[in-house]
Amino acid sequence: MLNIGVFGASGKVGGLLVREIQKHSDLCLTSVFVRQNLSMHLAQVLPEDAFVTNDLEQFLAHCDLVIDFSLPKASSKLIEFLLQTPKPLVSGTTGLEEQTWQAIRKLSQVVPVLHTPNMSIGMAVLNKIVGSVAKDLQEADIEITEMHHRYKKDAPSGSALILGQTCAQARDLVFDQVSQTKRENQRQTDEIGFVSLRGGDVVGKHTVGFYLDGEYLELTHIATDRNIFAKGALQAAKWLVSQQPGLYNIQNLYV
Amino acid sequence: MLNIGVFGASGKVGGLLVREIQKHSDLCLTSVFVRQNLSMHLAQVLPEDAFVTNDLEQFLAHCDLVIDFSLPKASSKLIEFLLQTPKPLVSGTTGLEEQTWQAIRKLSQVVPVLHTPNMSIGMAVLNKIVGSVAKDLQEADIEITEMHHRYKKDAPSGSALILGQTCAQARDLVFDQVSQTKRENQRQTDEIGFVSLRGGDVVGKHTVGFYLDGEYLELTHIATDRNIFAKGALQAAKWLVSQQPGLYNIQNLYV
Amino acid sequence: MLNIGVFGASGKVGGLLVREIQKHSDLCLTSVFVRQNLSMHLAQVLPEDAFVTNDLEQFLAHCDLVIDFSLPKASSKLIEFLLQTPKPLVSGTTGLEEQTWQAIRKLSQVVPVLHTPNMSIGMAVLNKIVGSVAKDLQEADIEITEMHHRYKKDAPSGSALILGQTCAQARDLVFDQVSQTKRENQRQTDEIGFVSLRGGDVVGKHTVGFYLDGEYLELTHIATDRNIFAKGALQAAKWLVSQQPGLYNIQNLYV
Amino acid sequence: MLNIGVFGASGKVGGLLVREIQKHSDLCLTSVFVRQNLSMHLAQVLPEDAFVTNDLEQFLAHCDLVIDFSLPKASSKLIEFLLQTPKPLVSGTTGLEEQTWQAIRKLSQVVPVLHTPNMSIGMAVLNKIVGSVAKDLQEADIEITEMHHRYKKDAPSGSALILGQTCAQARDLVFDQVSQTKRENQRQTDEIGFVSLRGGDVVGKHTVGFYLDGEYLELTHIATDRNIFAKGALQAAKWLVSQQPGLYNIQNLYV
Repeated sequence: MLNIGVFGASGKVGGLLVREIQKHSDLCLTSVFVRQNLSMHLAQVLPEDAFVTNDLEQFLAHCDLVIDFSLPKASSKLIEFLLQTPKPLVSGTTGLEEQTWQAIRKLSQVVPVLHTPNMSIGMAVLNKIVGSVAKDLQEADIEITEMHHRYKKDAPSGSALILGQTCAQARDLVFDQVSQTKRENQRQTDEIGFVSLRGGDVVGKHTVGFYLDGEYLELTHIATDRNIFAKGALQAAKWLVSQQPGLYNIQNLYV
Repeated sequence: MLNIGVFGASGKVGGLLVREIQKHSDLCLTSVFVRQNLSMHLAQVLPEDAFVTNDLEQFLAHCDLVIDFSLPKASSKLIEFLLQTPKPLVSGTTGLEEQTWQAIRKLSQVVPVLHTPNMSIGMAVLNKIVGSVAKDLQEADIEITEMHHRYKKDAPSGSALILGQTCAQARDLVFDQVSQTKRENQRQTDEIGFVSLRGGDVVGKHTVGFYLDGEYLELTHIATDRNIFAKGALQAAKWLVSQQPGLYNIQNLYV
Repeated sequence: MLNIGVFGASGKVGGLLVREIQKHSDLCLTSVFVRQNLSMHLAQVLPEDAFVTNDLEQFLAHCDLVIDFSLPKASSKLIEFLLQTPKPLVSGTTGLEEQTWQAIRKLSQVVPVLHTPNMSIGMAVLNKIVGSVAKDLQEADIEITEMHHRYKKDAPSGSALILGQTCAQARDLVFDQVSQTKRENQRQTDEIGFVSLRGGDVVGKHTVGFYLDGEYLELTHIATDRNIFAKGALQAAKWLVSQQPGLYNIQNLYV
Repeated sequence: MLNIGVFGASGKVGGLLVREIQKHSDLCLTSVFVRQNLSMHLAQVLPEDAFVTNDLEQFLAHCDLVIDFSLPKASSKLIEFLLQTPKPLVSGTTGLEEQTWQAIRKLSQVVPVLHTPNMSIGMAVLNKIVGSVAKDLQEADIEITEMHHRYKKDAPSGSALILGQTCAQARDLVFDQVSQTKRENQRQTDEIGFVSLRGGDVVGKHTVGFYLDGEYLELTHIATDRNIFAKGALQAAKWLVSQQPGLYNIQNLYV
């Protein structure tokens, strides 16, 4: 039985996580950190015996592994305390500052730490095969399409960029030299093109296309429910707990 | 039996046209205009009794309808002569100058003239339904994706822009105010987004997506063979010959 | 303000309907029929002033239009009472017996009645354009693909069959003579093929493909949230209330 | 420089092969087997110094490696002679009899032999990643869709079946127990479903879908030109010539 502490439980993915943990018989939600008071909404879905606290020391004392879907500042504070009381950490918090990254690296010398911006299992698998195809089909033109809901602010998506980096790496190319987000003229050899669509309430679609003469491959991942991020984090947690100290990402589960 | 004159027979689509006409029992290739000498290649595929000439007057004397897939300058010359000897005209020549357009409009007062940048039947039908859906689903976010081979120089494709104009018109919007080819931030209401992919030897792919909350429509046309442009021109010719004088486009066949 | 009575409120779509109505300022949920007691779950989402009853006469007395997403037997009972106290009816209940259909037809002579197995707006629009394309591209081979979650029992889906019927009608073909659900040998001319995929928790995907030589069209509808059926019913209700007596379906909103 | 002998040069892929070889500076078409006389058509595209013969012994004497796209009977004869004069063999001939397979296995003890029903590079890569994903996403429902032109007689395509076998193997399942080509009722766990579409002149489309709750992957290969089979054979030839004796298939190039 793995005792899990959830940090960021009042966030979007955090709430899904609280629910999802309780479906796994080998996982136990033992510790929950809340900044101030427990919201009605969250209280309704928590297991009765979960320890709820706004004291980081106490929070860590009640779990064996931490899952963090919070915000950069809160995450930075968490890691500070983890350096005092090391526990394995699964983190999906994005936008971390360099200082926090340094602390994470330090922590990962003592316990296994997994950080990844997209915890979905499907995207991890897509990323894996995309690297393999980029290498096997050296001459294929690569184009990456991503689509998200109409409110998404940035483009291309972070996940699309990771897919592109994987392609560039697989071909020993420097990503910044080959990525193309605003093509206006003819395609250059080696270019990796990105296009972004926005509309409706689409959770997430990513396609990596490999175009040769006379044939092409299009590899697509479609997300329809945000709880896949919670599910992926739990899968990562189960895997991480038996790893050596080190810094991992979701890809490492599928190599 | 409709006697057809082909202008621009040595071009890419012109050559396909010469071959395609001979598959139709109700069409006869009676007249072919060549600038200088007849190439070996073209000679091999011409019917024996076709009249080949570099004299425009003679060219027109030997046909009942002209199909033109040439270049702007040659096309302008052709229309000059057509104003003297009016014959129905199907033209797929792009990049015409305003002066040529004036001559075309004048010609269309005497004979039926059809001009369209993409003669494919499928694209005409896609354009028709796209207008209908844009109107019926007023709240849907519209995004247009087009893909062509790695050598295409301009983006978005002319056909993608036409699809977007059809959507804008159907919603009484001014196209230039809503078209968005370089989105960097969040989507605006009413925006019609365009993205362009380039790779391999893809002949042409166009998708118009209509995105609502909880559901979406994606309408896709895929071209795999350039001879569809020749086929579309012949279908247009058969239709045009029985129309009143006027200026038409390929859409008019499907209204 | 349109006063709506919901019949079948404890069902899957019924619950979504109760929530959805309250987002429309021109709609009011005034009457709710429950077979026995009101469930806790439903009680939480009902507006305070909605009249809840297990008496059909009283249920009808408190609304101007009924939306029915129930089961065949309950629906049959409802229509019996509606014949006594006619009110416009929007029904998405499937599997009705012939006797119930007779009663519906009788009711539709007095008030407007709309019945449709798939209330989604997008599917209605897809069905409309599919008929138009089937007619315009007479020579295109038509193939229909549908995908649903792994638990769906019947195949092809009712919606896929409706799309096929629309194609057959548009070409003056007898549907039963051209529909092909188990192709084993070569394709016959005029055949309309159906294939069914099942997997994951896919809400619904339908594609109608029109295949010519050198080009093809693929028209796809994807449903990602079941509340589109509730939304469609409300759109239908608003439209229906101002129609003449008669029997309608969701297509009629888009002709 | 690799001296290639083409067996089956008058067939569809054979003709493309003859043309394609001449684009490679490290390949030379030195030997061509024709059953009777050389056709005008083939004569026009052959290099001047190619040795053309209807004598199998002479044919083999003039090349270092044989590429065979012929028919089962002719192929059987070829292999009989190869057993006398062993040369590396790339074969794309399908429908071979068991007796021929025995001879092939015997031949492969002496020289490297590669046999594969679909020589396209893209399909080889698709097959590779499909096995990897089937393994990594053990719980995903697998559905395989293939589409070909309206004249194709068998269904599912041989390539679709290979993709399915790869999935079954990756999960340690017996293919015949899990493959499902005529699903009528609800999906069974572990089932691998196949659906076949036919229409237009589509060269070939294969999609392998992996469906989980909340997300799915769809991996698609599209062939638009038959010369990819010729290209794949040449790539295979270059690779094969430096291998140890043994029986290979196109997958082995990408492991």
